[in-house]
Amino acid sequence: MVSSKMYELGTKKSTIRTIFEFGRKRAAEVGEENIFDFSLGNPNVPTPEFVKEAAIEILQNFEPSAVHGYTVAPGNPQVRETLAQSINERFGTNFAGKNIFVTAGAAAAITISFKALAEPGDEFITFAPYFPEYKCFVESVGATLKVVDAQPEDWQINFENFIHLLTPKTKAVIINSPNNPSGAVYSRETIEKLARILKNKSGEYGHPIFIISDEPYREIAYDVEVPYVPKFYANTLVCYSYSKSFSLPGERIGYIVVPDEVADFGKIFGAVAGAARVLTHVNAPSLWQLVIAKCAGKPSDISIYRKNADLLYNGLKDAGFECVKPQGAFYLFPKALEPDDYAFCERAKKYDLLLVPGADFGCPGYFRAAYCIKTETIERSLPLFKKLAEEYK
Amino acid sequence: MVSSKMYELGTKKSTIRTIFEFGRKRAAEVGEENIFDFSLGNPNVPTPEFVKEAAIEILQNFEPSAVHGYTVAPGNPQVRETLAQSINERFGTNFAGKNIFVTAGAAAAITISFKALAEPGDEFITFAPYFPEYKCFVESVGATLKVVDAQPEDWQINFENFIHLLTPKTKAVIINSPNNPSGAVYSRETIEKLARILKNKSGEYGHPIFIISDEPYREIAYDVEVPYVPKFYANTLVCYSYSKSFSLPGERIGYIVVPDEVADFGKIFGAVAGAARVLTHVNAPSLWQLVIAKCAGKPSDISIYRKNADLLYNGLKDAGFECVKPQGAFYLFPKALEPDDYAFCERAKKYDLLLVPGADFGCPGYFRAAYCIKTETIERSLPLFKKLAEEYK
Repeated sequence: MVSSKMYELGTKKSTIRTIFEFGRKRAAEVGEENIFDFSLGNPNVPTPEFVKEAAIEILQNFEPSAVHGYTVAPGNPQVRETLAQSINERFGTNFAGKNIFVTAGAAAAITISFKALAEPGDEFITFAPYFPEYKCFVESVGATLKVVDAQPEDWQINFENFIHLLTPKTKAVIINSPNNPSGAVYSRETIEKLARILKNKSGEYGHPIFIISDEPYREIAYDVEVPYVPKFYANTLVCYSYSKSFSLPGERIGYIVVPDEVADFGKIFGAVAGAARVLTHVNAPSLWQLVIAKCAGKPSDISIYRKNADLLYNGLKDAGFECVKPQGAFYLFPKALEPDDYAFCERAKKYDLLLVPGADFGCPGYFRAAYCIKTETIERSLPLFKKLAEEYK
Repeated sequence: MVSSKMYELGTKKSTIRTIFEFGRKRAAEVGEENIFDFSLGNPNVPTPEFVKEAAIEILQNFEPSAVHGYTVAPGNPQVRETLAQSINERFGTNFAGKNIFVTAGAAAAITISFKALAEPGDEFITFAPYFPEYKCFVESVGATLKVVDAQPEDWQINFENFIHLLTPKTKAVIINSPNNPSGAVYSRETIEKLARILKNKSGEYGHPIFIISDEPYREIAYDVEVPYVPKFYANTLVCYSYSKSFSLPGERIGYIVVPDEVADFGKIFGAVAGAARVLTHVNAPSLWQLVIAKCAGKPSDISIYRKNADLLYNGLKDAGFECVKPQGAFYLFPKALEPDDYAFCERAKKYDLLLVPGADFGCPGYFRAAYCIKTETIERSLPLFKKLAEEYK
C-alpha cells in the first residue's frame, strides 16, 4: 500500500535518536542537570546578533515581494554574486555568481550533487568514520557507497585501502573536513595526495572522478588550515551550510560551488538544477538567501567549542582514554574501553553519560562525544568518565 | 559523466520560462509598461502586515535556538497542534498535531506524498488541464501519470473518461481545486461522485486508492464553497502551501495532512517521513513554522484577485472570447481563437500579450492568462485583446 522502502527509512530509529529519547526519559526521572547528553550535533552557540539584525532589517525595509517571492532555482542572482566574491576574498579563488547554486542546507547540497552525477551502476566512496546519512542519500540516487577503512592514528585518509576501492565505476569521492565524527581536519598533504591519485585514476579510467567536499564545519577549526579543495583539484563540488557557522540548522540554507574548471561546467550545473527540481527544492528559503548575503564574510564565534574541546579532551586523556586531539567540528572520537562499542556505550549509560557508538559511523571500537553542550555539563561529567574508566582497570 | 535525465530536467526550458524571457527582452526594447505579461503565477498581493509583524516579533523575543534550531522532521510539535486546531475550527474536522507533517511548500508536500505511496508499476491519475510539474514529480518516484480528458464546459471532472483510466495499478488520484490553470473549483457534487467511484473501485481492486488534494489556492475562491476533501473520502492526503494565501512562495512553507481515517495511518505517516528524509527535506524552515502557527486562521486578502478576475473575464467576453467564469485561483483559461494554441499565443505576442498555450497543461486549444498582475496592466491590455480577436473575424 505504501513504499516499503520509504516506510523503513521513515520509521527505523537511529541509534542517536534512541539514545536521545533515553536521555529525555532519564531527565524526567533524575533531573535535566544529571544527564550528560553527548549524543546530538546541535550547535549550542546562539545565532549571532548580526544575523538577527540582518533578518529584521530586511523584513522591515525591503519590499515584501522582493523578500518572499520565488527566486530563480539557483538562487537570487545578487546573493550568488555576493557569496562568490566572499569566497574569492577568503580563498583567492575566482568564482562568479554563476558558480553558486544556493540550497536548503548541506543535506540538500550533497544529495543534489549525488543525484546530478549518478548514473546507473555508479559507485561513490567515502572514508570511515563518516556521517551515516551518506549511505541513505547515495543509495536513494541509485548508486552504491563504498567505505574506506579508518586511519585511527590521525583520522587522515587511509590511502592504501582507498586505492583498492577505486574502480572504473567510481563517480565521486565524498570528503568531510572538519570531520563529523572524528574532529579531524584533512591536511594540505592529504588533499594534495588525494588530488594526485584522482587525477591519475581519472586519466586511467578515461572519465573524471569528482570530489564532493561536504563542509558544514569549515568555520569550526582550531588553529589549523582547512585547505580549500577546488584549489587542489578541478573536479570538486563544494557543499556548504550555515547550520553550524551561524547556528541556523532549522532554516535550511547553504550552497553548492560548481567551479568553471570542472570537466563540463554546463553539463554539471544543468544536472544540479535538474536534481534540485526533482528533489522539490524549488528555491532555497528566500529571506535566508538575503540574510546570508548580508552577513557574508562575518566571523563565526567558535570560542565555546574551542574551550569545550580542550576541557573534554584533557579530561578524557586524564581519565585514561585514547583520543586524537580534535582540530575542528564539535566532536571527539575516542577509543572505547572495550572492543564492543555498543556494550561500552551501554555501560556509560549507568552514569547517565550518553555517547554514540562508533559503529554507527562505520568505525566500531570508538565512540562519539558531541561537545556542543554547556561547558558546565562537561565539567561535571569528567568525574563520571573517570569512574567509568576505572571499571575497566 | 552526469545523469542525462537530471541534465535534461535542469536545462530544458519550459514554455512559460521562454515566454517570460521573451517578455524581459521586449521590456528592455519597448518599456516595461508596454508588456502585458500574463505568463507567471507569482502572487502580486503583498505579504500581509501581520505575517511580517509575527516574523519580527519571533526574531526579537524568542530564544534564538528555539527559532533557528533543527525541529523534528514532521515539524515543531506545538506548531503542528496549532495548525490542526485551526483546520478543525474551519472545517469541523478532528485532527491533532500527529496528523500534520510540515513541509517546504506544496511541491515538497505532493512529491513526498507521491514517493511515500509509490510502489513499482503504480499509476497516478490527474485531470486535464493540470500543473505540468505533476508529470515530472510522479515520474521521478518511478510511477506513471495518466491524464483524464478535460471537460471544457465547466472544467469539472470528466467522469466518463476517468472511469476508463482506473486500473488495479491506480495508486492515487491527484486533484487541484481551485485549479491551476482553469480557475475552476470542484463542487461538492464532483467531490462526492469522485469519492463514490473511488470507494467502489478500492473495494473492487482490494486496495485503497488515495486522493492527493493539492490545495495551494484553497483561500483564493470567489463566493463558492471549496469542499474539504477528507470529509468526503477517508483515504485523502491534503497538501497545502502558504505560497499564495500569505504570498510567501520563496520561503517554502506548507504541510501534509494525514488523517487518522486513512487505510493505515502508521504506515502512511512513516512512509511520508521516509520520503521527506531521502528528498532531503530535513525539516521545513523553522522560523516560518513559528510564523504560520502565529498567523493560523488569519484571512488572506483576495480582493485584488477578485477585481482582476472580473475585469479580465468581462473584457475577454466582450472581445468575443469563450471562457468559463473563474471561481478561484488567479488564472483564466479561455479558448484560443484558432485550434493551434501555440500559433495563437505567437500571434498574441505581436501585441506584447504574453499568454501560455493550453497544451502545456495537457489541454490544447486553450490558453492560460495569469491575472495576478497590476489591475492597470489588465485595463490597458483589453483593447489589445480586442484587436487580436478582430484578426480572427
